[in-house]
Amino acid sequence: MSEHVLTFYPEGDGNAQSVRVPTGTLVADALQQAGVEINQPCGGQGRCGRCVVQIESGAIRRRSTLRLTPQDIEEGFALACQGVVEGDAVVRVPPQEKISRRLTTDRTAAAVAPPPDYAWAEHQSLKRIPLTLTPPSMENQTDDWARLQTALRRQAALEDIVAPLPVLRKIGDRLRQNDWQVTALVDTGSQPKALLDLLPGYPRPEEPMWGVAVDIGTTTVTVWLVDLVSGQVRAQTAEYNGQIARGEDVISRIIYASKNDGGEELRQRALETINALIETACKRVRLTPEQIVKATVVGNTTMMHLFLGIPPASIRLTPFVPAVNSPPPFTASEVGLKIYPQARVLCLPGVASYVGADITAGALASGLADSEEVCLFMDVGTNGEMVLGNREWMITCACSAGPAFEGAGVVDGMRATRGAIEEVWINTTTYEPTCRVIGGVRPRGLCGSGLISLLAEMFITGILDKAGNLNFSLGSERIREGEHGPEYVVVWGEETAHGRDIVLTRVDIDNLLRAKAAIYAGFSVLAGQVGFDLQQVQRVLIGGSFGQYINVEKAVQIGLLPDLPWERFEFLGNTAVRGAYAALLDRRAEERIRQIAARMTYLELSADNTFYDAFMAAMFLPHTDLTCFPSVAATLNKV
Amino acid sequence: MSEHVLTFYPEGDGNAQSVRVPTGTLVADALQQAGVEINQPCGGQGRCGRCVVQIESGAIRRRSTLRLTPQDIEEGFALACQGVVEGDAVVRVPPQEKISRRLTTDRTAAAVAPPPDYAWAEHQSLKRIPLTLTPPSMENQTDDWARLQTALRRQAALEDIVAPLPVLRKIGDRLRQNDWQVTALVDTGSQPKALLDLLPGYPRPEEPMWGVAVDIGTTTVTVWLVDLVSGQVRAQTAEYNGQIARGEDVISRIIYASKNDGGEELRQRALETINALIETACKRVRLTPEQIVKATVVGNTTMMHLFLGIPPASIRLTPFVPAVNSPPPFTASEVGLKIYPQARVLCLPGVASYVGADITAGALASGLADSEEVCLFMDVGTNGEMVLGNREWMITCACSAGPAFEGAGVVDGMRATRGAIEEVWINTTTYEPTCRVIGGVRPRGLCGSGLISLLAEMFITGILDKAGNLNFSLGSERIREGEHGPEYVVVWGEETAHGRDIVLTRVDIDNLLRAKAAIYAGFSVLAGQVGFDLQQVQRVLIGGSFGQYINVEKAVQIGLLPDLPWERFEFLGNTAVRGAYAALLDRRAEERIRQIAARMTYLELSADNTFYDAFMAAMFLPHTDLTCFPSVAATLNKV
Repeated sequence: MSEHVLTFYPEGDGNAQSVRVPTGTLVADALQQAGVEINQPCGGQGRCGRCVVQIESGAIRRRSTLRLTPQDIEEGFALACQGVVEGDAVVRVPPQEKISRRLTTDRTAAAVAPPPDYAWAEHQSLKRIPLTLTPPSMENQTDDWARLQTALRRQAALEDIVAPLPVLRKIGDRLRQNDWQVTALVDTGSQPKALLDLLPGYPRPEEPMWGVAVDIGTTTVTVWLVDLVSGQVRAQTAEYNGQIARGEDVISRIIYASKNDGGEELRQRALETINALIETACKRVRLTPEQIVKATVVGNTTMMHLFLGIPPASIRLTPFVPAVNSPPPFTASEVGLKIYPQARVLCLPGVASYVGADITAGALASGLADSEEVCLFMDVGTNGEMVLGNREWMITCACSAGPAFEGAGVVDGMRATRGAIEEVWINTTTYEPTCRVIGGVRPRGLCGSGLISLLAEMFITGILDKAGNLNFSLGSERIREGEHGPEYVVVWGEETAHGRDIVLTRVDIDNLLRAKAAIYAGFSVLAGQVGFDLQQVQRVLIGGSFGQYINVEKAVQIGLLPDLPWERFEFLGNTAVRGAYAALLDRRAEERIRQIAARMTYLELSADNTFYDAFMAAMFLPHTDLTCFPSVAATLNKV
Repeated sequence: MSEHVLTFYPEGDGNAQSVRVPTGTLVADALQQAGVEINQPCGGQGRCGRCVVQIESGAIRRRSTLRLTPQDIEEGFALACQGVVEGDAVVRVPPQEKISRRLTTDRTAAAVAPPPDYAWAEHQSLKRIPLTLTPPSMENQTDDWARLQTALRRQAALEDIVAPLPVLRKIGDRLRQNDWQVTALVDTGSQPKALLDLLPGYPRPEEPMWGVAVDIGTTTVTVWLVDLVSGQVRAQTAEYNGQIARGEDVISRIIYASKNDGGEELRQRALETINALIETACKRVRLTPEQIVKATVVGNTTMMHLFLGIPPASIRLTPFVPAVNSPPPFTASEVGLKIYPQARVLCLPGVASYVGADITAGALASGLADSEEVCLFMDVGTNGEMVLGNREWMITCACSAGPAFEGAGVVDGMRATRGAIEEVWINTTTYEPTCRVIGGVRPRGLCGSGLISLLAEMFITGILDKAGNLNFSLGSERIREGEHGPEYVVVWGEETAHGRDIVLTRVDIDNLLRAKAAIYAGFSVLAGQVGFDLQQVQRVLIGGSFGQYINVEKAVQIGLLPDLPWERFEFLGNTAVRGAYAALLDRRAEERIRQIAARMTYLELSADNTFYDAFMAAMFLPHTDLTCFPSVAATLNKV
């Protein structure tokens, strides 16, 4: 097979890079080989069009031109993930969007500690056990390890303790350097129980032991650094998941993972993100990561597979079966967490391919699993998972809402970073909008909460009819026929950061309708399945940091959330990491999450014959059946 | 601190190497830094004198000159392990003795297989379990791992199985690529039971499963490659332990291990030897090492510590306590064996600092532990361990015989390689000796069996009196006053390979007497401790490959072995690896070795007040008490 030389010119920053590849190589793979960064939000499927490059010269065949106009092609543009190398070529790489670092801090999570009346400490699986050993003598030549086992049996009633090799390697010196007065750090929750470390002398009882609770979100990874003795969260850090550059949603990631070493790359990217967050958290408390001796991890099922390096391919193929819902405990060194290498890493259990440990942990942390009243718990993240139930029963489903509310699939959509429009009000007479922009700068696009707000305002003011059609008869120049069909101009180009108009097109509206309809149809089908009236839900528990920014009124107006009195809505922030935190402190909480995973009934929407009808009924604003949305009906009458 | 440049000229082969080191560095460490090989049989204690180098110019201070004559010093010689760098220097490194590769093959071990009437197969802890899984469907979306656990429970009654992460990573593909028809490789001996691998389809029941039994001797490492299905040993390999260059006996190794990264270096050297042996064995059977799924390991306590990277320092310090006698099971990847990474590695248990797993395994393999009659088991290797007992009771001790019979501490001593005199006969009239030399070449020195033979002949012919004094009155020119005192010339220089006389000096004789006295005193004290008459021992079981070359008559004549009828002596070859092999096949054998280790009474000779008297009584040829040696007394009367 012949080889070709590809030369890449990254625009903006970076030097030209050349690389030799065989015929048939994808430009995206060649870029990676050359170490030139390129974002692939759809994971290399040729769907998102963000990995576009410009062929200056040479032979690159376009496998798909779905995302390219004839003019694009004439100007030499091609998608890196669809460009096949057939000869030497020179390629210009446009500047890649850098994710800016404005991250949502969890508004509800400041200074978390267990409630004073909650006796968790005795249920901490990690125990520090002070021991006094009889020093060996010519009359008693028992080896160090047997001597230690005897002390643990006699002084702490701990039988059949094992020790990992690195700990066995240090017990001899530890015992002798501390005059046989040491403290055993024992994991009493493992099977068999394990000696994790041997500490010199006797630490004061209030001296911290450190643990981390980790939530691997598709978009954002969150780490809480916890003192396992006081129970206090001592640092919270969050960062975009480093996998984003290889796909914005779980499906894209699964596709990327199935190609070449994609799975290993995604595993490394998740680990880099988590380890960097742990390091940052440790710096704040002046700790070294090696002092962290326990970790709990949650995430959706795909994230857990990628984190553990387990191929996730079967998750997206009928019949949607994951490799592992409930992984056994691992050590930090096995999974690659840079904390104390022998620290136990507990991956909490999920329920199904699209209902993961973030939801089982959330069902506990949100209070649903303890509630007498029937609750609806939803985690508004990149995926749309929900649980209906109480402490007696739980039913769950996931609706592939798609990432429209995360800004993907919408022409001017973007993440909730600097320059994103996060709220819109439209004048009912002039149809002129007023926007609030994150960072107070010139806008660049619309984020999720901005889209919900905009859609609601357009509907309430009559710019949109209930089917999502634009009303051209209103006479506003903002309502126009654009390049991609009918659209509404939210901000004129002269007021934007990039000089282009920010618009919401008919296609965008359809995508948003589909997303919100999928979520609402999920509610309906869950309730229908158990014969429960959605109006009777006493508490709507909304997890996910995105949830905090949703304006309930607007979300109800577009029919995303059920029309219930406002006081029934509770915004809980990141319930996933809270559940992981509870399991980190208390074995009973861990055990309860395992029970929740075992008890929860999973409803596969793609196999449910009522889902399609419910979905189609919800494809209107707010819904075909206005009696389900009495408050919206009242507002429409007022306008 | 100032730095200096050392330049090394290896004589014979190799180029000059320069290295920068700070003031105070040992020449030996600088050599290692420069990558120049130097043997340190005593582990860098300045005792053996083998690491001698010649200072051409520069500032090297001699910390010890114990092994150097004033003339040596005048000529610039210094010991690398005692030379302290105090300025730039140029150093000449003499050629290092290469260990030649003539290794003893175990004469008794050809085509080993379990006896036909021995039903071990059902006690093999590794089981291959064929499974048929129901493929998942939209009605049954159970994850792969839970599905597999259910199948193991229902189809093989195996509960609570765990799986290591690398196995979890492959189950999804394995199941789907084999239409859900797979074979589980389960370790039923571990706690909890573990899925080690998932094999495609259904292997035929007679298809081999592979294991290795490993004996890490101080001098020689032995590996048996075993088909765990037929029980047959399919390949045997042995090689010098790569640690030899860093010390010939365990004490030297412990000292070396305690310096800088000496322990890690010795661990790596043992692993390199073992992994190379496994690879060689695999090549013979056309296997890849990754097909080996189980290992058992024996060795003396120091070897086990070094193999596992556990610091052995306390073994040689009062009160002689090892860190671990009975290590827990590990995986191959944890310990560094290059076989199937998740293979379980069972390190068999030892009893004390100087009675290790080689002896507990040997007590089983020799038949002592099953015997009704009282047996004396001894492993004649670099160390002198022995067990007295039967299936009811066992008492053990180790005598620091020193490596005299391995050729160390004797002027013309050497290992049993090409050029070593292995047997000597002396004419009773002329006092002229006849020698048998390994390889039939010109002799270079005397190996252990040659030394025993020579000493016995010198005693029987009257060249030596019972105290080991040379009889100058015999008028033989071979009996002379040499440089180091009285000596006997075994071979004149004109007949040797190196042109120098091969002699046995009075100092050598004292070293040999001390060695044999220590061993015999061990027998006496063990027997005395349980009130048993040594003459009543029914079987003397001699393990260790060296044991095979001992001439019993000669060994009795010098008082090394008790004077018993020849038919009571059995030479068993490597009993350590045989015990490891038994434990590899059969969980009951493993369990019995653990019981032997727990039951065996260990006698610490250095704390025994009868040992010194017994030792002094044995410092004569054959012994002060000739009534213990009736056959020798008869021979002496005949001569």
